[in-house]
Amino acid sequence: MEALVLFSGGLDSSTCLALAVKKHGAENVTALSVYYGQKHDKEIQASDRIAEYYGVAHRKLDLTTIFADSDCSLLKSSHDEIPKETYAQQLSGSDGKPVSTYVPFRNGLFLSSAASIGLSLGCKVIYYGAHSDDAAGNAYPDCSDKFNNAMNEAIFTGSGEQIKIEAPFVGMTKADVVRMGAELKVPFELTWSCYEGGDKPCGVCGTCRDRAAAFAANGLIDPLVKGE
Amino acid sequence: MEALVLFSGGLDSSTCLALAVKKHGAENVTALSVYYGQKHDKEIQASDRIAEYYGVAHRKLDLTTIFADSDCSLLKSSHDEIPKETYAQQLSGSDGKPVSTYVPFRNGLFLSSAASIGLSLGCKVIYYGAHSDDAAGNAYPDCSDKFNNAMNEAIFTGSGEQIKIEAPFVGMTKADVVRMGAELKVPFELTWSCYEGGDKPCGVCGTCRDRAAAFAANGLIDPLVKGE
Repeated sequence: MEALVLFSGGLDSSTCLALAVKKHGAENVTALSVYYGQKHDKEIQASDRIAEYYGVAHRKLDLTTIFADSDCSLLKSSHDEIPKETYAQQLSGSDGKPVSTYVPFRNGLFLSSAASIGLSLGCKVIYYGAHSDDAAGNAYPDCSDKFNNAMNEAIFTGSGEQIKIEAPFVGMTKADVVRMGAELKVPFELTWSCYEGGDKPCGVCGTCRDRAAAFAANGLIDPLVKGE
Repeated sequence: MEALVLFSGGLDSSTCLALAVKKHGAENVTALSVYYGQKHDKEIQASDRIAEYYGVAHRKLDLTTIFADSDCSLLKSSHDEIPKETYAQQLSGSDGKPVSTYVPFRNGLFLSSAASIGLSLGCKVIYYGAHSDDAAGNAYPDCSDKFNNAMNEAIFTGSGEQIKIEAPFVGMTKADVVRMGAELKVPFELTWSCYEGGDKPCGVCGTCRDRAAAFAANGLIDPLVKGE
């Protein structure tokens, strides 16, 4: 196995998976999906469909116990509602704190888990789909370029230079990711981004708003909201 | 809660716990012990006794599934024997690879887990007991100063500057840790370092040899091997 891809079943990580498959071949790619106590399992269902679509090995990991005490609004352990505003609106007056949907050090934990698993499988590289919209204003500090560089250094050094990180979108916006995904013919209709677990995307949570803007910026229609 | 201490029940992390308790007070310290599929649970038993001795909250986390495919000789998943040589002897002719008891990116994974849990508990600092003997010759690359600096940067940045790492022994030898532990009156007789799970330390695995040399360097007798 060559590459491990952190794979939520969302638009960004699905595009990341498409890139890794293009570069390494499906037979050399393993997708890793983590359940961490979200209020719904729509993403995990989406990840199943997309991993099958690409014909890659698919591993799942349950890290719910680690977040048992978190008050992050995405999690079952929290009674807080998921905000219905853009990230920029949520950050206004937040005193530099991340948004309420920030899962404590999630990307660091997932990348570390991927390093441990990837080393065991003989992988040389871990992919993940962080992009600059999520890092903007420190909404999700574990999506920033600075975080990514430090984490890559930690994983490369701490593994005896056996494995490294590729974050192909870290300097790109979500609109750039949609454009690249469209070029790679990513099956956007199979992905799930919305923080809510409804039959259709809610349209008003932070990630729905960001996704809609990213499709609009490319003059594209999101197949998940087509015909509405 | 102020501080989370990665706590294996060994000599280094017990001394680290003693330092954290001295600085923050036992009521503000949580010890975190991780089971990851070791061939025995002697360390976990030791961690119970020492956490009780210091009167700190004690959390346990099972990350065995992450290492299911590892061939690390410490783990149940491996049939390899634990080497009976010093780390320096094991590293001779290893082409720069870590020793066979290196658990893939263990410290990175444990520190990331501690960051996620620590943020949920409101902690500002994570302690761990890495020291330079373990990092020497790249035996355990996830104990090095370089790894520690990168990981601290990743955790501090990736948490929105809410939590950081303290690695008080990263520039010290195990002999220095024993000297500090003796000054702090750490109950060495309750700790467990040996990689084997016998009634008494085996005396010949890498960590037994390092521990014996560290006591000898201080002119002290290890209470675990006293009278032999």
